Amino acid sequence: MRVGVWLVGARGSVATTALVGAAAVRAGLFEPVGCVTELPGLAAAGLPRIDDLVFGGHDIAATPLTKQAERLAEGGVIPSRLLAALRDELAAADAEIKPGIPSPGCGPAVAAADLARFRERRGLDRVVVINLASTEPPATPYPEHHSLPELERALAAGRAVLPPSSLYAYAAFRSGCAYVDFTPSTGARLPALEQLARAAGLPYAGSDAKTGETLVKSVLAPMFAQRALRVRSWSGTNLLGGGDGATLADPMAAASKRASKGRLLKETLPDPVAEIIHIDQVADMGDWKTAWDHVTFEGFLGVKMTMQFTWQGCDSTLAAPLVIDLARLMSHAHAAGHAGPVAQLAFFFKNPVASAGHGLAEQYAALTAWACPE
Amino acid sequence: MRVGVWLVGARGSVATTALVGAAAVRAGLFEPVGCVTELPGLAAAGLPRIDDLVFGGHDIAATPLTKQAERLAEGGVIPSRLLAALRDELAAADAEIKPGIPSPGCGPAVAAADLARFRERRGLDRVVVINLASTEPPATPYPEHHSLPELERALAAGRAVLPPSSLYAYAAFRSGCAYVDFTPSTGARLPALEQLARAAGLPYAGSDAKTGETLVKSVLAPMFAQRALRVRSWSGTNLLGGGDGATLADPMAAASKRASKGRLLKETLPDPVAEIIHIDQVADMGDWKTAWDHVTFEGFLGVKMTMQFTWQGCDSTLAAPLVIDLARLMSHAHAAGHAGPVAQLAFFFKNPVASAGHGLAEQYAALTAWACPE
Amino acid sequence: MRVGVWLVGARGSVATTALVGAAAVRAGLFEPVGCVTELPGLAAAGLPRIDDLVFGGHDIAATPLTKQAERLAEGGVIPSRLLAALRDELAAADAEIKPGIPSPGCGPAVAAADLARFRERRGLDRVVVINLASTEPPATPYPEHHSLPELERALAAGRAVLPPSSLYAYAAFRSGCAYVDFTPSTGARLPALEQLARAAGLPYAGSDAKTGETLVKSVLAPMFAQRALRVRSWSGTNLLGGGDGATLADPMAAASKRASKGRLLKETLPDPVAEIIHIDQVADMGDWKTAWDHVTFEGFLGVKMTMQFTWQGCDSTLAAPLVIDLARLMSHAHAAGHAGPVAQLAFFFKNPVASAGHGLAEQYAALTAWACPE
Amino acid sequence: MRVGVWLVGARGSVATTALVGAAAVRAGLFEPVGCVTELPGLAAAGLPRIDDLVFGGHDIAATPLTKQAERLAEGGVIPSRLLAALRDELAAADAEIKPGIPSPGCGPAVAAADLARFRERRGLDRVVVINLASTEPPATPYPEHHSLPELERALAAGRAVLPPSSLYAYAAFRSGCAYVDFTPSTGARLPALEQLARAAGLPYAGSDAKTGETLVKSVLAPMFAQRALRVRSWSGTNLLGGGDGATLADPMAAASKRASKGRLLKETLPDPVAEIIHIDQVADMGDWKTAWDHVTFEGFLGVKMTMQFTWQGCDSTLAAPLVIDLARLMSHAHAAGHAGPVAQLAFFFKNPVASAGHGLAEQYAALTAWACPE
Repeated sequence: MRVGVWLVGARGSVATTALVGAAAVRAGLFEPVGCVTELPGLAAAGLPRIDDLVFGGHDIAATPLTKQAERLAEGGVIPSRLLAALRDELAAADAEIKPGIPSPGCGPAVAAADLARFRERRGLDRVVVINLASTEPPATPYPEHHSLPELERALAAGRAVLPPSSLYAYAAFRSGCAYVDFTPSTGARLPALEQLARAAGLPYAGSDAKTGETLVKSVLAPMFAQRALRVRSWSGTNLLGGGDGATLADPMAAASKRASKGRLLKETLPDPVAEIIHIDQVADMGDWKTAWDHVTFEGFLGVKMTMQFTWQGCDSTLAAPLVIDLARLMSHAHAAGHAGPVAQLAFFFKNPVASAGHGLAEQYAALTAWACPE
Repeated sequence: MRVGVWLVGARGSVATTALVGAAAVRAGLFEPVGCVTELPGLAAAGLPRIDDLVFGGHDIAATPLTKQAERLAEGGVIPSRLLAALRDELAAADAEIKPGIPSPGCGPAVAAADLARFRERRGLDRVVVINLASTEPPATPYPEHHSLPELERALAAGRAVLPPSSLYAYAAFRSGCAYVDFTPSTGARLPALEQLARAAGLPYAGSDAKTGETLVKSVLAPMFAQRALRVRSWSGTNLLGGGDGATLADPMAAASKRASKGRLLKETLPDPVAEIIHIDQVADMGDWKTAWDHVTFEGFLGVKMTMQFTWQGCDSTLAAPLVIDLARLMSHAHAAGHAGPVAQLAFFFKNPVASAGHGLAEQYAALTAWACPE
Repeated sequence: MRVGVWLVGARGSVATTALVGAAAVRAGLFEPVGCVTELPGLAAAGLPRIDDLVFGGHDIAATPLTKQAERLAEGGVIPSRLLAALRDELAAADAEIKPGIPSPGCGPAVAAADLARFRERRGLDRVVVINLASTEPPATPYPEHHSLPELERALAAGRAVLPPSSLYAYAAFRSGCAYVDFTPSTGARLPALEQLARAAGLPYAGSDAKTGETLVKSVLAPMFAQRALRVRSWSGTNLLGGGDGATLADPMAAASKRASKGRLLKETLPDPVAEIIHIDQVADMGDWKTAWDHVTFEGFLGVKMTMQFTWQGCDSTLAAPLVIDLARLMSHAHAAGHAGPVAQLAFFFKNPVASAGHGLAEQYAALTAWACPE
Repeated sequence: MRVGVWLVGARGSVATTALVGAAAVRAGLFEPVGCVTELPGLAAAGLPRIDDLVFGGHDIAATPLTKQAERLAEGGVIPSRLLAALRDELAAADAEIKPGIPSPGCGPAVAAADLARFRERRGLDRVVVINLASTEPPATPYPEHHSLPELERALAAGRAVLPPSSLYAYAAFRSGCAYVDFTPSTGARLPALEQLARAAGLPYAGSDAKTGETLVKSVLAPMFAQRALRVRSWSGTNLLGGGDGATLADPMAAASKRASKGRLLKETLPDPVAEIIHIDQVADMGDWKTAWDHVTFEGFLGVKMTMQFTWQGCDSTLAAPLVIDLARLMSHAHAAGHAGPVAQLAFFFKNPVASAGHGLAEQYAALTAWACPE
């Protein structure tokens, strides 16, 4: 079996780390730490192997992967010794990255053609498209988002009714590929695109992979709820450097991110919580991210208590193995005939499609039950 | 239905807070925040109501409950206005507290007689004995711990083969009561006592209620495991004031506590973890407790990351509602004919009897499935 | 000697805590912990005693002081037992609080008359006016701010060219009182008012007492500078409850606060620092305040390191003894004939008048050298 | 001017970082960030330049410096690109490192001879010996420590009355070199050695450079004192990896460290403080060190508040520039004829010789006043 992984934003930090990491694992240089799909609990699922993955993608940036990898090595994201060891692998991957992001007019057609050629040229059984591009502002609503025929008319007329992430989802579905919203961008989350996915018998998953603060919240919030402790406030400050920080310095993109992050508490805790989420750029921090969360809660006889946590993670390091996981699991969903949103992958996302539950443990149970039914 | 709750260490901070709190809830002055048994998920269990609970107990201290309550009010554990509002209730509860802890010789017989009289005098359907007394050092092993007949011969001969907590468990079982190890002390956790409980058709639960650092670990450790992140070190510093701090300033008692706390990581994480647990007394902190935990973990391509948390809780506030929960649930287990250790109450304990799993979410699922079978 | 302390915002949390505290110290119930003027280093200054202070003030709120004190006792700011012990003292203080804040027209005259009557009625040697009222937005600039005669013409014409805090400073100077800007509001910090103070031979001090985050910054920033470590970013999140939080939820008031807080790093550190300051309201926190600061800095060979701190303080508790300190020290300055801004009190302020240095240790040395010259 | 810097433990992490760093600064590859002697406040002191320093030393380890530097580069302490750029410099430095640490018998004589040859061979005006070797347990007391003649008799008789660090100090003084105790080891801090230093007209400094937790304490403790806030407890947990952690895993060495760290609070704060200092090895942390400190303090009216900080530093990065600073400053002291302990260098040490003050700001003022008298 050979599975294509088409990365939108293929020269970005997450994509580059995923590419380098998959190559390093294949070469036996590193164990796949951080890959959920390598856990014993998913061993029986019969997923495609990491060796079976073939990478390609689009990017508007032209910087070669080797250059990006060097930058990541300087920032401590990639061990320097991999640069020499994987030079040929990275050059080969570079050759599969096409320029640009589709524009409203001919864009989807071009993207679909790129996907078709990738599948054919590399002899792939299936292709999973994963959007890793910079977070978009919340999408402007159009009536066409609610009807596939109307959407297609608008696209045919060259009208800009879809943001790039949704044009990609459209192109993916039109060319028979599964699709993953790894970011908070709109992507496949429009009724018309859901209609298309279901009609085409294709799965999609999303959105916004949880790699730090929200991951921790997804276990702490259920803890408070199951202990009947009343959370009164939850304040979070996220300090991000690098590209992610620069994108989220745009208030509109940050709004998408905050909206995505904000669902968890509302849907997990029974009482209203005063929630504050700051997302700040601190250029100096490079690919690293620090989240400080401060929680006040009330216990027996009204006594007020406090919890704080500080998470210091490398965003690309945390996200990259999930890209590999999602490629393997979506290929599995596609092969199994799953059409439409895959609620069972909520484990990976801040803002899970078609799913009400945010508790990580329940999400893990749902994931393994789905992937390895008894 | 009337259920007796016999507290060993009935004048301590946790017991006093539980007594005051139950009275405040009965009087409609406070909602039972922190009581797990009040969650919707346990509504169908048909547990005894908080109003059905009748408190009594033993203590070597003679300080009246009202005095203890005043001290707790000064420390911010109990709202001052409850002191006046519940004066009569506390005086009544005081009358049910008997002096002393059983000594090896006649102790168990005396304790059993106290329990029997309590049940009769107050017309109780069942009595649950809960050990809240100061943590003991790890028990000295004796061959008699492995055989009920031999244990009884030793007790009859007045030999000191059991620590106080185990004498209590023995007395409880002999007088038909369920038993809970709320502390890390040995209590019912001896083969001979398990034999007795099973023979008498009585349930027991324990040990060492998790109210802070370990509670948080019970959700964070599974999070790291399910995300395939390799925890490399987990260092915890616990600063405790008040009575608990004073007890644990004794290195032997602290050893019991550390052993109890240490099981979770070993049994939850696949790789060996360098674990450090400090328990320090800081008299100035009164009933409050601060835990700082520092976790290092490794992700994709060997990158090292860090998480820290600070938990600032009031120990008695966190523990007291669990005393009420365990009284209700153990009465339920007793009524249902459960004999021996109740593995389904692992949710409440650092060192759960007859249970291998430490993940809080799984423990919660097991608790509700047991209490409310479909 | 008898010194009047006229508090603007006399029923607020800081003022009430100062009043209650001064009374408790006079009654021998508490030691004056937190009063800098009680340190051995200032013993030789011959300051007025705490017993010599007579309190009065203005407030637009009519809630009696005893009511405010009860609220503060519930929030843990004032020990409950003081309420009964100081009932008469508080009632007497209440009688000295006049309604309202001066309006542009007749306001200053009315305020000046209130101050004069207070001095006469209580037989005071001197009066110090301290502004504790809610933080104002940055003042709208007017040309009249630069010339005392023009300012007086505008005031005579009833033109609203001064914010309330500056009307108070004007009234204070006109009636021969020293003035303290305890908040970031404009107060005496206008050229025309400085002219007035100098002409009248009156001292003023300010602005914005440092009681938490900035206090800590005033020792950490010099530490980095003196160790030649390059601070690259300094991110601070301030969570405030209560009245202060509510005021600062107003973006304009928060802007005043942030501007006040922002001077320190710019003037202490040699290299530009990416500084972020969040001020958030968390109603649940009452009079308590939590600041979390995250600092990244660079050392030898470009290695990046990090420091974080969490400050959990009770704002009124920290501010109230400084009110007493400033009353005593400003009476001293007045008696010594100091006219205009008192740069030697920079020790107390985030945004010190007429002073370039922000290092706490240097400020302390300057304070003691001024108060106790050899 | 040419100044020799003789490092005891010349192949350790701190020494290697200092050597690499000095070479990188000389080569113009890095600015001397972290070097206090490069601050404008010390510019007028006329210190020897970094270019004037010539390194040599002793070590029992034989691993070449280039190897050590590679290890440090992997741990993120030294930028990888310096390895190639400074290969020749490091090889040259390697040639100046002699094997071993002096043994009691002929040791001092051998060491003194090594020092003399180093000075002669490299044409040095002065040599400063700096002890960077692993921390020793507290020294066993001998009567000979109090009298130089008796000490010399004991040494002549081959009696082991001095620990290695003190043998080094003895050898340094005997061969006309200044001496620095960079670690908590005994070194020059014995009356007999002070007699020798004074007699020989040689300066010494120490002990135990402050690079993290104690540095921060040296500004926070004075802050609390100057604000008249009563510190009640100060709990610190230090997590160390690498060699330093391994050494301090020895309880005896940790005892030296704790004693050294413990002076500051006792001598800075007026009230007794419950102080806890944990030093733990966490191998996974490499050259990095994390300190978490938790401080409880009391303010006005007995209200209790809390401060916490987390310091995450690279120990070698913080220590290495201080090695350079101390070499330059001690050469200066030697040239100026300073004999005996140099109290004015307290700024650098946890446990400063001949100095009562621990406040960093006062220490900095004392340093600059001494180095640049007006």
